[in-house]
Amino acid sequence: MDPRLTLVTLGVADLDRAVRFYEALGWTRSAYASEGIAFFQLGGLVLLLYPRTALAEDVGTAPEGSGFRGFTLAHNTASRAETDAVLAHAQAAGGVLVKPAQEVFWGGYSGYFADPDGTLWEVAWNPGLLPLPDGTVRLPA
Amino acid sequence: MDPRLTLVTLGVADLDRAVRFYEALGWTRSAYASEGIAFFQLGGLVLLLYPRTALAEDVGTAPEGSGFRGFTLAHNTASRAETDAVLAHAQAAGGVLVKPAQEVFWGGYSGYFADPDGTLWEVAWNPGLLPLPDGTVRLPA
Repeated sequence: MDPRLTLVTLGVADLDRAVRFYEALGWTRSAYASEGIAFFQLGGLVLLLYPRTALAEDVGTAPEGSGFRGFTLAHNTASRAETDAVLAHAQAAGGVLVKPAQEVFWGGYSGYFADPDGTLWEVAWNPGLLPLPDGTVRLPA
Repeated sequence: MDPRLTLVTLGVADLDRAVRFYEALGWTRSAYASEGIAFFQLGGLVLLLYPRTALAEDVGTAPEGSGFRGFTLAHNTASRAETDAVLAHAQAAGGVLVKPAQEVFWGGYSGYFADPDGTLWEVAWNPGLLPLPDGTVRLPA
């Protein structure tokens, strides 16, 4: 199995609300397959927004769930200042500041926001894992 | 906010078990920052495995949660046969087949497996979204 993660799909309670949030972040919804689902190209992968009930049905599981969802997404930044700016932007777009940016034990500067469905995004300046010009990150060899 | 998703972190109940599973898929754990956390370079992004309780603590939330987690990850393939092979490989590695591969309404061929912590991976042949040689996917313009 090749080392490849190509899509991240978020189940959302209200597709229009979720699309508005991610568009307000400054991201562009693709015109691809636009009925009842939303696609955003993020570098070399695709973020999908899809109604939570439909996603559960596609998997073949019950849609109910509560509490901590056991995953986070991250947006690595090039500086502490970019971390602060992104967190402020996410709040202005309607996100919830879950953890203010702060110096963290692993040597970076990081905070979290939640999207309207509670998906947790870490916004992290990690001096050992800076985003490259093409938006990717590469672990040191 | 640049369109960038650089890390996906999965909270796991047993780090060693999770690492064994992803290594059995054929993926290579990075030597980067190896104590109590595992990093896998997947194309231009990084998959992290981290104890669920520690991840919740980092966010500042309670670790409890149950039911559908409201997200899926996907591994796009180049063919139906590759989808079948990947699902078989994931089962051999200790994954659970959640949905056998089948023709799906959007014109592809797709199934799901779950990792040892229940994270859902779709393995999908989508003729409109084939992986490129560098492992990325690009939505049609």
